[in-house]
Amino acid sequence: MSKFNFNMLEADKGVKSVSFGPNSPLKRLFQMVVIKRECYVNDLWELVGHETVSTRDEKREDIRKSIDWLLKRLADLDVVAFGEHLGMQMTELYQTIRMPRVIIGVLVHSPSKPTILVYGNLDVEEAVVSDGWGTDPFVMTEIGEYLYGRGVAMDKGPLLCWLNAIQAYRDAGVRLPVNLVFVIESMAHCGSLGLETVLKERISFFRNVSCVAMATRRWQSATTPGVVYGSRGLIYYHLEVQCCNRDLSSFEHGGTIFEALPDLFYLLSSLADPQLNILIDGAMHAHPVDLNAVRCADFNYAEFGENLKVPRLPNRTKKHVALAENWAMPHLSIHGIEGANFEADVRFVIPHKVIGKFSISLAPNQRPEDVTRALQKHLGIVWLQRASPNKMMLCEKFVIPSWSGRCNSPEYLAATRAMTKTYNVKPNFIRDGGSLLAPSIFQRVLDKNVVVLPIAEHDIGGCPVNERISVDNYIKGSQLLAAFMWEYAQEKPEGDSVRGMCMPNDG
Amino acid sequence: MSKFNFNMLEADKGVKSVSFGPNSPLKRLFQMVVIKRECYVNDLWELVGHETVSTRDEKREDIRKSIDWLLKRLADLDVVAFGEHLGMQMTELYQTIRMPRVIIGVLVHSPSKPTILVYGNLDVEEAVVSDGWGTDPFVMTEIGEYLYGRGVAMDKGPLLCWLNAIQAYRDAGVRLPVNLVFVIESMAHCGSLGLETVLKERISFFRNVSCVAMATRRWQSATTPGVVYGSRGLIYYHLEVQCCNRDLSSFEHGGTIFEALPDLFYLLSSLADPQLNILIDGAMHAHPVDLNAVRCADFNYAEFGENLKVPRLPNRTKKHVALAENWAMPHLSIHGIEGANFEADVRFVIPHKVIGKFSISLAPNQRPEDVTRALQKHLGIVWLQRASPNKMMLCEKFVIPSWSGRCNSPEYLAATRAMTKTYNVKPNFIRDGGSLLAPSIFQRVLDKNVVVLPIAEHDIGGCPVNERISVDNYIKGSQLLAAFMWEYAQEKPEGDSVRGMCMPNDG
Repeated sequence: MSKFNFNMLEADKGVKSVSFGPNSPLKRLFQMVVIKRECYVNDLWELVGHETVSTRDEKREDIRKSIDWLLKRLADLDVVAFGEHLGMQMTELYQTIRMPRVIIGVLVHSPSKPTILVYGNLDVEEAVVSDGWGTDPFVMTEIGEYLYGRGVAMDKGPLLCWLNAIQAYRDAGVRLPVNLVFVIESMAHCGSLGLETVLKERISFFRNVSCVAMATRRWQSATTPGVVYGSRGLIYYHLEVQCCNRDLSSFEHGGTIFEALPDLFYLLSSLADPQLNILIDGAMHAHPVDLNAVRCADFNYAEFGENLKVPRLPNRTKKHVALAENWAMPHLSIHGIEGANFEADVRFVIPHKVIGKFSISLAPNQRPEDVTRALQKHLGIVWLQRASPNKMMLCEKFVIPSWSGRCNSPEYLAATRAMTKTYNVKPNFIRDGGSLLAPSIFQRVLDKNVVVLPIAEHDIGGCPVNERISVDNYIKGSQLLAAFMWEYAQEKPEGDSVRGMCMPNDG
Repeated sequence: MSKFNFNMLEADKGVKSVSFGPNSPLKRLFQMVVIKRECYVNDLWELVGHETVSTRDEKREDIRKSIDWLLKRLADLDVVAFGEHLGMQMTELYQTIRMPRVIIGVLVHSPSKPTILVYGNLDVEEAVVSDGWGTDPFVMTEIGEYLYGRGVAMDKGPLLCWLNAIQAYRDAGVRLPVNLVFVIESMAHCGSLGLETVLKERISFFRNVSCVAMATRRWQSATTPGVVYGSRGLIYYHLEVQCCNRDLSSFEHGGTIFEALPDLFYLLSSLADPQLNILIDGAMHAHPVDLNAVRCADFNYAEFGENLKVPRLPNRTKKHVALAENWAMPHLSIHGIEGANFEADVRFVIPHKVIGKFSISLAPNQRPEDVTRALQKHLGIVWLQRASPNKMMLCEKFVIPSWSGRCNSPEYLAATRAMTKTYNVKPNFIRDGGSLLAPSIFQRVLDKNVVVLPIAEHDIGGCPVNERISVDNYIKGSQLLAAFMWEYAQEKPEGDSVRGMCMPNDG
């Protein structure tokens, strides 16, 4: 049993110790969530059953069904919601397919209350059993204290926690203290295609939103929850070298041609030194992260290394340096090579066109365009030194800007208090080493502050297979979001005027 | 019509100009081959129909059938032949499967005649339509002057040319001037597994063999045939770097670990400079090839570069240097990377174990063990410089020694004369940039001189797809081998004693 395991008796204990009275609305909400546990687990089982893999064209029908499923659930909670059509999308094979609808919903209780925009996504990452899953990823399976299945932790479970939280208010007979606006997309794994368009087209609809909240990602620590207040940016590059017009055989042509792969390795080797320092002049002088925040974060670096059987970690004993690296320092990872022989067999091929795939994570204050310009210059110089006759080309595949929330704000104070009351421990303020696209879109298009409340514990199973969440944390996540709404109303008792807020016409 | 197109009238012309009389046996043999053209093309069509891909376990039944097919054909020609069983083989999946039989056959006409050991192989390289074949690779298709199909040029066509040549002697009523011994395997594309064992176990059976002849590979020139007198050696390596025990995400772990791919690129980049010079100290001081032979060879280097759209060739105008590189200088090619992301999709993976695959072609006088020892030492030093905590391992996947025939010998003189009479032009003496395993096995185990007579023109289609041979060269190849037997008997009229040569027991 995990230390966060929850039953009614323990709930009482926990609740008492953070000092809210035995008949406080929050306590009644928490109890209601626990009572409905079976029902909430069953909802998640249903939703996981839809294979909502947005990167696979043939799964769009599954996504359509899951959108209908969610619209029905929202209607049951009196949320006025509809699916906004986004038109057609061009696939990699140059076919057009219909894009999934973006669900827009609204639940208004009073113009005088603040309005939270709840963002979520229905789509999930690819999952196939042969990748190493112990269970069918699209049949949620309870084993011991865990629920296994694609999306249980990212992000179907967290999305349902919002619905569970609203249900708890109804069950407890507590009036919802905030207004809610929903934006739920199904293209999060396709670069949130269409999300920005919807927000811009409906911008007046969102003008009364007080803040944007999303429950995604996970804690940095095994024991302490965290509020995510930012994430790094990211640029994904393809670096292509071509030496001739078709693959050759080293039998026939070895020694008679300047091969492409050694050129590519030379270029890629020039990008960083063995100590992980990026060697691209010009755009890598990023301001370091506030190390005070890092020092407060709870993260066992040595254990991390031991689990992965890493022979030696960079900056072995310096937890805060490693975390700072991951949180907010630029970093370069090389992911692979396209076009060369990748199979276990023996082939005497000289690949004629090879693509090195790498990404640079960006510090909060780095501008993607500056980094790409510096990289182009760097590669130009190194290529001149190489003096190869081959063709070299850099291609920026996609860009995610970095994102930082305003921590000194009602939403972050409410998130902190809600986490403290739910988990009985003060949360860390953490950044995410990954790159979250949606927060930067909301911040840029709507100019609203975004807070991310992860409900998933740090260890959500071997990534990307065997994704899991503990039943306990799924239930606690529902409590957390109920508490967040409550605390937010305390922090920001007066809403901006919602006069004139009405549903846009359905489609 | 190619300049080698052959019909009865032109045959007369050609035959006259190399001065053998209108009623000479050789002329009658040549005419007989032309008369049977349709029949020979049909035989090849039948043999190509067997999918004899030895590297695919599930094709062993096809190989079994093709062995039976060939045994029948050999019996029709009065060759006493049987299939020697080789027992079981361990597959990559640790299953045991039966190895294909090696066909051993003998056709003795007189103990006083010299004996040629004819080597051939029935198996072919993998071929799937989706690789870019314009026709079904296992349905031989005649388009214009060419026959398309897997094996038409390497090596089913050449193998049948031997049978066609024997048939021509029968049709022309000319007594075969040599004895023939056959060794025909079906594991040439699996490192000739079992061939050495068969030769050693039956070594007394081969003691009267005068020389080993094989018809494989192709000409170096588009217009001039070549006798292959040697090939480079080859060592195929796997260089593995491992940084932890499972693939990571650059989101979660970028900056907190020393990644494996940059280490591998660093090591691979250290092996050769941009001018293709191998930088491994100690074993790379190979004696250059005899440039006189190279100068005589016919090879249009500039045209080669233009066909491939190569921006600039090494040693652009120096044909003989480029050929020397390919013939007999050590060379290093990098073929690919195993374990990293190779697909066109975007993944933020940090691969945990990556394998660099490369090969070093060896000069005639380089010993594989010296090269591997030098490479180990080189990598050891570079790895120390890198100071990476990761695990590095070099693995020698397989080794083919270099091979050189004795050119000043009856078999090479006979080959030269046979080519001159068949193609009406003096052949080049060429080496093969690839590595031929069988000649080195025969030379080492039987201590016999080996001559390779390529019948395929230089351009046998886009390699490895759309393999082709011109009908003309298939027919001329049959004439060539008939002529080779004839000329060999002239060069070496007295056979070693074949007294006591009898078939080994079947089975």
